[in-house]
Amino acid sequence: MVLGPRLPADIQTPCLMVDRDVLEQNLVAMADHARNHGVALRAHAKTHKCFEIARRQLALGAIGLTVATVGEAEVFAEAGCNDLFIAYPVWAAGARAARLRALAERVALRVGVDSSDGVEAVARALAGTEAEVVVEVDSGHHRTGVAPERAGQVAATAQRYGLRVAGVFTFPGHGYEPGGRKQAAADEARALQKADAALRQAGLGAGLRSGGSTPTAALLIQGALNEMRPGVYVFNDAQQVELGAADWDGVALTAAATVVSRHGRDVVLDAGSKVLGADRPAWATGFGRLPDHPHARISALSEHHATVSFPEGAPGLELGSLVRVAPNHVCAAVNLADVLLVTAGGAVVDQWAVSARGKNA
Amino acid sequence: MVLGPRLPADIQTPCLMVDRDVLEQNLVAMADHARNHGVALRAHAKTHKCFEIARRQLALGAIGLTVATVGEAEVFAEAGCNDLFIAYPVWAAGARAARLRALAERVALRVGVDSSDGVEAVARALAGTEAEVVVEVDSGHHRTGVAPERAGQVAATAQRYGLRVAGVFTFPGHGYEPGGRKQAAADEARALQKADAALRQAGLGAGLRSGGSTPTAALLIQGALNEMRPGVYVFNDAQQVELGAADWDGVALTAAATVVSRHGRDVVLDAGSKVLGADRPAWATGFGRLPDHPHARISALSEHHATVSFPEGAPGLELGSLVRVAPNHVCAAVNLADVLLVTAGGAVVDQWAVSARGKNA
Repeated sequence: MVLGPRLPADIQTPCLMVDRDVLEQNLVAMADHARNHGVALRAHAKTHKCFEIARRQLALGAIGLTVATVGEAEVFAEAGCNDLFIAYPVWAAGARAARLRALAERVALRVGVDSSDGVEAVARALAGTEAEVVVEVDSGHHRTGVAPERAGQVAATAQRYGLRVAGVFTFPGHGYEPGGRKQAAADEARALQKADAALRQAGLGAGLRSGGSTPTAALLIQGALNEMRPGVYVFNDAQQVELGAADWDGVALTAAATVVSRHGRDVVLDAGSKVLGADRPAWATGFGRLPDHPHARISALSEHHATVSFPEGAPGLELGSLVRVAPNHVCAAVNLADVLLVTAGGAVVDQWAVSARGKNA
Repeated sequence: MVLGPRLPADIQTPCLMVDRDVLEQNLVAMADHARNHGVALRAHAKTHKCFEIARRQLALGAIGLTVATVGEAEVFAEAGCNDLFIAYPVWAAGARAARLRALAERVALRVGVDSSDGVEAVARALAGTEAEVVVEVDSGHHRTGVAPERAGQVAATAQRYGLRVAGVFTFPGHGYEPGGRKQAAADEARALQKADAALRQAGLGAGLRSGGSTPTAALLIQGALNEMRPGVYVFNDAQQVELGAADWDGVALTAAATVVSRHGRDVVLDAGSKVLGADRPAWATGFGRLPDHPHARISALSEHHATVSFPEGAPGLELGSLVRVAPNHVCAAVNLADVLLVTAGGAVVDQWAVSARGKNA
């Protein structure tokens, strides 16, 4: 389904807009999905970086939030979220060690680890606190994480250093390939179960099996995971649509853009990579999509220019037209903006700060 | 030449660092280059977005600044820069029209145009002010701008609407291709001369022939341009080095990153696309470069992870190591950061706000 344009006429482009109703529908659907499968939802806040959305996720039943960095954890702790998982192999050195400790003294904190050296640094930082570590395992994305059969070893090291081990986690990022979602969901389930068994064998029946990503969320394998950490689902984006993990009517965030130049069938929009982000996987059909012009493609992108090509016969766009653009990767787009304009019924009704923007350290 | 590591030991990664001495060397070299060729330097501030660097550019002889958006112009006007060129086909509608007018009443302002409709909107916004328009021409990049022979037509329209026409400008962005710099510089010169002739034919001997980009800056064709607008040269980046437009000892900005995970010969750094930006032209050898490890390549990049691959036999990197990463495209990286740490002699000596960060509208 293709939505009609919902563009407030007085908007100053380029900017990011969140459709309040679509957002709410996405939030409720994922909360229900997790509940129906008996899986805890620990939504990843790196996507939205907003207090308003975090609070709504928690109100709808999320057990806590996932974040990617100590800086993001600090921002959401400040906002009153008291159960945080930094799903990243945090290197707890220098000032970061002190910040991590301060967090652990303030909220229920879990921290990712994927090496003995990493465990050692985290143990020094968190000694005597209630914080727990979670061992990252590689389920096929081949980025961070140990092989599932080695999870017991890392967990045993953590325990030796006096750290509590909550369990294991993985990110099945190889689901970000056309046709790859089902295999990634199966790999994720297998890796978590294998790693959980490795922990039990090491005498550490910790129990947490945390997985999840938006492309694999709908494909939950009953009993394999007991926690999921999707992030993108709140907004969705062009990638999720092209992967088949979302429909256009599930895309809650778009950039508002103006046609500033026109050359034959091509037009240039004022939303470039400094608004949309430059993410473009090889399989994507362009640098983002125009939900209201499904045949159009963004064929080139620079900092302040998106070149949009229309196929032969499709109606083009006049100079000065307002259009909506779905970024390829919404997490990257949000991290470029200071605020999100909240729309309902075609009007701007609110404005939310992107409070954790740029908190990468 | 490969520089030795210059990493303050107490730095919290990931973050962006500017080497003060390399920056100064780049600023002086471009100012001298422009002066020696009798070409005015109107440096593009979208790269650095910093008051401190803008002021130094002006002190070294830049006649004014180039910016990409009305928002950037407002920030630099606030900082005291009173001669600004928005080198973009600004769509002067709604609130933007009023902002443009307020700028024109405050500073010497030039605005890009590339269509009659665009001219009409700008004329309404700027009527009765001293602001001038500059006609954008396409010199081969095929993004915005009219064909050089049509420049006279757009200029005549502008004059009919009562606008002063300063001349013509172009961006030879097709110089961002390996081996493409020389051709792009020749195309730029030809397009500006042709467009200038078209203006004279229309009875508008306006005179400004503004070009320039960092890849073509060194290849100035005597007499063709009388103004240049390079931006990236202040910092340089992995793209400029791979294009042959800069050496590693001219790279003034790098991200400081920590090795957080290690798998065989590959390591993962904590500077991902939310720090480096995701720009990756097809010809680039990866998602950025490690100046101190010239054989390493960033083979994969996600939001908080850069996967670095080393060739057989090269020394790898230990967990916890600090490294420098040159982004592919420094303008994108700077626009992700709130501050730049200024280093000298291996220590942080200052901190500059990225004041125009995110000012895309």
